[in-house]
Amino acid sequence: MDKDLYFMEEALKEALLAASKGEVPVGCVIVKDEEIIARGHNMRETSNHVFMHAEMIAIDIACKKLASWRLDDCTIYVTLEPCAMCAGAMIQARVKRLIYSTKEPKSGVHQSITNLFSLPFNHEVIVESGLLEDKSSEMLKEFFRSLRNQKS
Amino acid sequence: MDKDLYFMEEALKEALLAASKGEVPVGCVIVKDEEIIARGHNMRETSNHVFMHAEMIAIDIACKKLASWRLDDCTIYVTLEPCAMCAGAMIQARVKRLIYSTKEPKSGVHQSITNLFSLPFNHEVIVESGLLEDKSSEMLKEFFRSLRNQKS
Repeated sequence: MDKDLYFMEEALKEALLAASKGEVPVGCVIVKDEEIIARGHNMRETSNHVFMHAEMIAIDIACKKLASWRLDDCTIYVTLEPCAMCAGAMIQARVKRLIYSTKEPKSGVHQSITNLFSLPFNHEVIVESGLLEDKSSEMLKEFFRSLRNQKS
Repeated sequence: MDKDLYFMEEALKEALLAASKGEVPVGCVIVKDEEIIARGHNMRETSNHVFMHAEMIAIDIACKKLASWRLDDCTIYVTLEPCAMCAGAMIQARVKRLIYSTKEPKSGVHQSITNLFSLPFNHEVIVESGLLEDKSSEMLKEFFRSLRNQKS
């Protein structure tokens, strides 16, 4: 199985965990030397903390594990286009590569609101999108459908 | 004394604390109902963690203190133009107002690299700049001067 596909499937498993807690299903894994060194899923509502996006949780774990603010050789797999906070953290951490699944029209900063990654910062992250887009997109739609059904 | 000036002086005290630890002098305070609810100074090198910018440390404390990811009625005073991570966190946290002192040509996202705050996100932060700019700018210059002297 293609490695990128495998790691994005793992990120989708994290997204499912978020949904099971009533959180918007977004999941993330961070990979270094072909091994997952950190995982995270969206916990913003449960935690009442603005940092608790999937990517930030995983970046926090990775920095602590590597005892470094630099994640030079790491690839981040996330099921949703990142917001400015998460994208900014990736640029600050000198992340090598970001692969995300589906776009986030309201806050995404790669193809939706802007392309933050194209700006002349002192580090350039390689970005790819669209991997397992249908799966991630369907999971999000299903989550919001069931939320509406609960409310009605 | 003007309240904004007072709070920026407090942020500058935090910046001095950063410098005393050999960190780039950046300091921040978060104010709600005219009281400082959180303080932070840059600790990136000492902590080896990418989140440890002055603003992120203060936002973390504020979220925990208010038990909320929303910092709606808060004003952030910071001695340096924020990077994308910190600015993104402010937008995500629905911060009311940001006042910063001096610009950061390499990574600032209000007037240097881009203006992230002008983009159509679902929240708009009111931004002001230039308060006690000379003091903050001189503190940064002095820090880098002494760093060069140590190396030579």
